Amino acid sequence: MHRRLLAEFLGTGLLVAVVVGSGIAAERLSPDDVGLQLLQNSTATVLGLAVLILLFGPVSGAHFNPVVSVADWWLGRRSGGGLSGAELAAYVVAQGAGGIVGALLANVMFSVDAAMATTERTGTGLLAGEVVATAGLVLLIFALVRSGRAAVVAPAVGAYIGAAYWFTSSTSFANPAVTVGRMFTDTFAGIAPSSVLPFVGAQLVGGAVGVLLVLVLYPVPTPVRI
Amino acid sequence: MHRRLLAEFLGTGLLVAVVVGSGIAAERLSPDDVGLQLLQNSTATVLGLAVLILLFGPVSGAHFNPVVSVADWWLGRRSGGGLSGAELAAYVVAQGAGGIVGALLANVMFSVDAAMATTERTGTGLLAGEVVATAGLVLLIFALVRSGRAAVVAPAVGAYIGAAYWFTSSTSFANPAVTVGRMFTDTFAGIAPSSVLPFVGAQLVGGAVGVLLVLVLYPVPTPVRI
Amino acid sequence: MHRRLLAEFLGTGLLVAVVVGSGIAAERLSPDDVGLQLLQNSTATVLGLAVLILLFGPVSGAHFNPVVSVADWWLGRRSGGGLSGAELAAYVVAQGAGGIVGALLANVMFSVDAAMATTERTGTGLLAGEVVATAGLVLLIFALVRSGRAAVVAPAVGAYIGAAYWFTSSTSFANPAVTVGRMFTDTFAGIAPSSVLPFVGAQLVGGAVGVLLVLVLYPVPTPVRI
Amino acid sequence: MHRRLLAEFLGTGLLVAVVVGSGIAAERLSPDDVGLQLLQNSTATVLGLAVLILLFGPVSGAHFNPVVSVADWWLGRRSGGGLSGAELAAYVVAQGAGGIVGALLANVMFSVDAAMATTERTGTGLLAGEVVATAGLVLLIFALVRSGRAAVVAPAVGAYIGAAYWFTSSTSFANPAVTVGRMFTDTFAGIAPSSVLPFVGAQLVGGAVGVLLVLVLYPVPTPVRI
Repeated sequence: MHRRLLAEFLGTGLLVAVVVGSGIAAERLSPDDVGLQLLQNSTATVLGLAVLILLFGPVSGAHFNPVVSVADWWLGRRSGGGLSGAELAAYVVAQGAGGIVGALLANVMFSVDAAMATTERTGTGLLAGEVVATAGLVLLIFALVRSGRAAVVAPAVGAYIGAAYWFTSSTSFANPAVTVGRMFTDTFAGIAPSSVLPFVGAQLVGGAVGVLLVLVLYPVPTPVRI
Repeated sequence: MHRRLLAEFLGTGLLVAVVVGSGIAAERLSPDDVGLQLLQNSTATVLGLAVLILLFGPVSGAHFNPVVSVADWWLGRRSGGGLSGAELAAYVVAQGAGGIVGALLANVMFSVDAAMATTERTGTGLLAGEVVATAGLVLLIFALVRSGRAAVVAPAVGAYIGAAYWFTSSTSFANPAVTVGRMFTDTFAGIAPSSVLPFVGAQLVGGAVGVLLVLVLYPVPTPVRI
Repeated sequence: MHRRLLAEFLGTGLLVAVVVGSGIAAERLSPDDVGLQLLQNSTATVLGLAVLILLFGPVSGAHFNPVVSVADWWLGRRSGGGLSGAELAAYVVAQGAGGIVGALLANVMFSVDAAMATTERTGTGLLAGEVVATAGLVLLIFALVRSGRAAVVAPAVGAYIGAAYWFTSSTSFANPAVTVGRMFTDTFAGIAPSSVLPFVGAQLVGGAVGVLLVLVLYPVPTPVRI
Repeated sequence: MHRRLLAEFLGTGLLVAVVVGSGIAAERLSPDDVGLQLLQNSTATVLGLAVLILLFGPVSGAHFNPVVSVADWWLGRRSGGGLSGAELAAYVVAQGAGGIVGALLANVMFSVDAAMATTERTGTGLLAGEVVATAGLVLLIFALVRSGRAAVVAPAVGAYIGAAYWFTSSTSFANPAVTVGRMFTDTFAGIAPSSVLPFVGAQLVGGAVGVLLVLVLYPVPTPVRI
């Protein structure tokens, strides 16, 4: 279990370091075009997220995301094989701690002073974006797993987040641990503490929608195919 | 059958949401360079389309496109295994409805007022582009399926559309359901209703060219190899 | 044999259409930044070339390139399995014709008047770039084939050309049929007729270097592994 | 052994040629936006590095990096199968020579006068970046190898470096041979000789951290799975 929690801690931390660090590099190097900054930020995240899932998947499942862990627990209660309640709690703690440490690591690498984020992210459009983004993420992961295609989860999830940075208005946080971590840097990827709770709420709603879609579209898990 | 139609509805809807939503984000964030906007839009589509095919492929075949469904029905009449006429009709309705809902979803996420598109897309060059784009799409899908390589359809179709955004003058709609959906947003990816019929006509011509090329180049379907 | 030559003709033609067409789109949409144009052009080519190899590979081997066909004939004389002399000649003719038609197709789609290219591409640096680019291309293809990894040729060759657009000073033509085709458009990807012969000469030298490296590094073909 | 050293020499040389050459192209073609230059440079490197690992992997293991070779030797002493001490020494010499020749080749292709780099890269933030970048690289490679997924090392390492260009403040050199080579060009990717020693030191520290993480997370190598 210690290895699994270390993997969730490191994976979530490095994911936030990728998101925050590439955001800082982008806003410093291309100060005149916010869209180019987001392209740099999303490209780095597509690549980095896929790699992190490859890296830690065999150890912990590479959730890096409390919504994914809750969905795993929930679907596991019906179909077997998911996290236990105690494991779920430990995963969420490791993910949250990782998210915060990852933001601080990015600050250190880029010599950014520690400060809470001041970028407010509000509005029903953005929250609708978070619902869609998180529902799609949960549906994707468990659709692949339940149809015996776990081997492609890593590139598929990276690609999904890369698309969702652009097609959802919220740039697709879709992850409470990452959202919490991104409070701890006042840079491109930051989110003001006052905006966090609505984001996490929308992510939980999206996660539930995703699980329901999984149960409708992939009602029966099939044995591993690849 | 209900699951399959739900998959076609959701898949086409999310495809249009990706195309329209990323176009809105691009024009807002990089207002000074239309080429950079198209790069952001096409990058999001490459990634999103591949993911959607992975997600819904095992349920419905992930057509998301009336031309592909017609080609499946047509080729299936010769070689077996395609959609029936009734299934074809239901698929097309689900795809069209999905396309419209997807555009509206993007409008909601980005707080865009509902309005019909005003971007006219006309000229023989553009229609030639749609013929080429759709012929290539149909040829690609059925070449892969008929040579036992269905497992690579998802990334291959995403990559194809990404190239076709750039090498065809029309930015490669190549899909009547998506074309119809893109009438319902007056943003980057919109198409004025008056331009839709010629586009759909060119797509049907392209689809027929594609099917003929499939029959010449891959006359005999082979058993699944991967 | 007719199907194979049709595949070489269509594949080379569409490859040139991708290169030329995306170049026209790029220079029209991002007129102020040549580097951004090349990024758009190279991204479209990475995706399009990989797709074309997937599409036509099972029919003709997807050479699309006289240097590759010559190398196939040469290596086949030593190890067996390559093109015969008559096949080689027919392949080269189909490729050359395809390259020209592809450039004209791009002109039609983008409503560009037919005209020979006026962009001169000269200098020993550029010719050194073509030698390196072509040597690397030949080495890559036959290294993969001779080590039983033909299944990854499509994405690998796309990726290679994408890198070579940038790391060689010549933007990596690396293909006599494509070079000839690119004379027939006076746009971003064009090459003035006076520059063609030195380019083709450098490509042939590079091809010979590539074959020698194949024989040193992969002296014995192994049976198919994937 | 000669083939293996040739592969390490060519692979490291071409890797540096990709990094340096694409950097020169980027700064010449997009002179007004350093961030766009880095995007072009990182995109070329993602593609080129993956290709080079595919190309030379079956011959030499495609280390191209003294830290990777040292880690291979170190882990091999515990688990078997790594380089011997004599092989390690020969690999490092071939890699260093390749790195220098690669930078000179890029200078020749782009007609850049030979000169030592003048770009100083200093500060604790950058050195922290190199520690993180190199630790992640070593962890990734050996995690994949020890869990029977060596077949995905090529795209995974390319993707990792692409992310690390952006999320580490140092743009992720993560390789002493490449660092040494990059002294020999006074262009975008250059590094002043006075900055090299601290970079290499940080890379060695990162390599050691990476090996320790490998031993904690993947204590027992498993047989090849793919």
